[in-house]
Amino acid sequence: MSSSPTAAGEFSLIARHFQRRQPLRHAALGLGDDCALLQPLPGEQLAISTDTLVADRHFFADADPAAIGHKALAVNLSDLAAMGAQPLAFTLALTLPAADEPWLAAFAHGLLALADAHGCDLIGGDTTRGPLSLTITVFGSVPREQALLRSGAQAGDDIYVSHGATQGLGDALLALHLLQAQKGQAPAPALGYLSASQQSALLQTLQARLEWPTPRVALGQQLRGVASACIDLSDGLQGDIRHLLAASGTGATLWAQNPDGTGLLTAASPSLRTLGDAAAIDYALAGGDDYELLFTAAPAQRAALHAIANRTHLALARIGQMDAAPGLRLQHANGQAEAVAGKGYDHFS
Amino acid sequence: MSSSPTAAGEFSLIARHFQRRQPLRHAALGLGDDCALLQPLPGEQLAISTDTLVADRHFFADADPAAIGHKALAVNLSDLAAMGAQPLAFTLALTLPAADEPWLAAFAHGLLALADAHGCDLIGGDTTRGPLSLTITVFGSVPREQALLRSGAQAGDDIYVSHGATQGLGDALLALHLLQAQKGQAPAPALGYLSASQQSALLQTLQARLEWPTPRVALGQQLRGVASACIDLSDGLQGDIRHLLAASGTGATLWAQNPDGTGLLTAASPSLRTLGDAAAIDYALAGGDDYELLFTAAPAQRAALHAIANRTHLALARIGQMDAAPGLRLQHANGQAEAVAGKGYDHFS
Repeated sequence: MSSSPTAAGEFSLIARHFQRRQPLRHAALGLGDDCALLQPLPGEQLAISTDTLVADRHFFADADPAAIGHKALAVNLSDLAAMGAQPLAFTLALTLPAADEPWLAAFAHGLLALADAHGCDLIGGDTTRGPLSLTITVFGSVPREQALLRSGAQAGDDIYVSHGATQGLGDALLALHLLQAQKGQAPAPALGYLSASQQSALLQTLQARLEWPTPRVALGQQLRGVASACIDLSDGLQGDIRHLLAASGTGATLWAQNPDGTGLLTAASPSLRTLGDAAAIDYALAGGDDYELLFTAAPAQRAALHAIANRTHLALARIGQMDAAPGLRLQHANGQAEAVAGKGYDHFS
Repeated sequence: MSSSPTAAGEFSLIARHFQRRQPLRHAALGLGDDCALLQPLPGEQLAISTDTLVADRHFFADADPAAIGHKALAVNLSDLAAMGAQPLAFTLALTLPAADEPWLAAFAHGLLALADAHGCDLIGGDTTRGPLSLTITVFGSVPREQALLRSGAQAGDDIYVSHGATQGLGDALLALHLLQAQKGQAPAPALGYLSASQQSALLQTLQARLEWPTPRVALGQQLRGVASACIDLSDGLQGDIRHLLAASGTGATLWAQNPDGTGLLTAASPSLRTLGDAAAIDYALAGGDDYELLFTAAPAQRAALHAIANRTHLALARIGQMDAAPGLRLQHANGQAEAVAGKGYDHFS
């Protein structure tokens, strides 16, 4: 509540680290006035999402600031991806305990590198002093009536989840658990059969999945007209899929592992599969911070999805089927199904 | 960094306090999916602004939560007003130390009452646990090429500031100083000639100006095609006008008080004028949180502005003139001019 007039350091701070020399790609007016101006193309709707990251809740305060910048935008781009929208621009509200120049430079570098990779303009912002947190609001473009909603799934639709060739669901949660153990905040995961140096190597691989998530932006746009419903995995599959079920008025059965190779285990973290199938499934269901797309599609779309997987260099694991009966079930390899009880990560837990 | 799956309290929290039964007024899709969808009308641009309010920096943490909700949106609507934009919608990122139901109910009430007054839809949000702060991103509509920019002022233009009939610049800063004195955080302002009960009555009047600011939304829209440049006063006149001067490539002379009634003193807080002209001018120049519009217009627009003042029931004080010579000057009643040295409130001071 300080209010004495002083040197306008805030403004030069923003200018130095966040103003770009390059012209705006999608906005009519960017930083420097009371508002930015955006003009969607005719026939396009603007998709808008906002996400806050709070220090020591969504990231470790001592994490690489470049990674924090990357992740803050990545989680928002992931929401655009889940709607099938093309990124246009974003605003950044940055609350910092102090104007730490090296921190800001690294943060801006991580943030703007991802923005540039997606042609996404920083068009507005606010910098305030306070406990470290970031809120980004992102804007994307999607042709009218073509946005991927959560509400379009029907009984009989296939359920898919995206993942990288050597990445899977639960990687980020395992990395979090390893990091928490390293910091003495939690007991170590049951990785006793790995040597300390093997655990350290595993953490190094997985930490990138936690701190540098890759939003599936191209995939989301390719899924327009193919997927019947879509959501991004931020709070854990078993919680996030419930939003899709609620919006669509359906239930779902997920498969652990089928003889034909379909099922959750295919999409699970390769690192976790070495811990055993049960752990891999648990982490795949519970793991937050995956930022993969979970989507449904009619069985007639299987060939189209095969082609999309090839084009996007992603694996699209078929992990279950939508049911008319409400609820979420997991069918084990032995054919027995059980209700899935857990829910997603709750920021108010 | 907790990540254990638990009951989805966050989602029901949002639903209970922020979901409305009424249909969306301006958005194609609101809360409840990965993104909201907005579709500006043909020929309209979308004006976008974002502002963060941090507890005990922008408001007292123990303030009336309804006032906090009101102010968080008001400061954003003030940015739309400064562009001449009509409010359409907003997103809310809310970080709270705990899910305090009565606090949330009052906060939502204050927030949504102002939103309703301006036909502004809540279309997205994020709720996280952490130190109390709020970031709102607001969306408005403005006809293409008609947005009021900071860059359009020319030498010879009149300079105006809006104010209410019984309100003026510096009210909010005086209220802040009285409140800080009451809380023992600062020495009391020099109000010794007022009794304790008179000071208490004064605070009650002024506190509303600090905690329940009125964004000049209708005025901003009326100024399209009339004002040459516009900015809203959030950090104090002497700091904010510098942004306008820098963007327009001009200087300015403000008048303390002219015999014809023009000058800053007309727009100064009536409460402060009782403290003496010098104090009133100082507070008018330095005072943050005024949320009035400062704008420039060619002298040929004086009649049009008189009509706008009548239509909006606001006073539009003519307080100076734009100069070709750079810099900001204050011309006193005796005709002498001095350079204004102070700058605006800096959130990183």
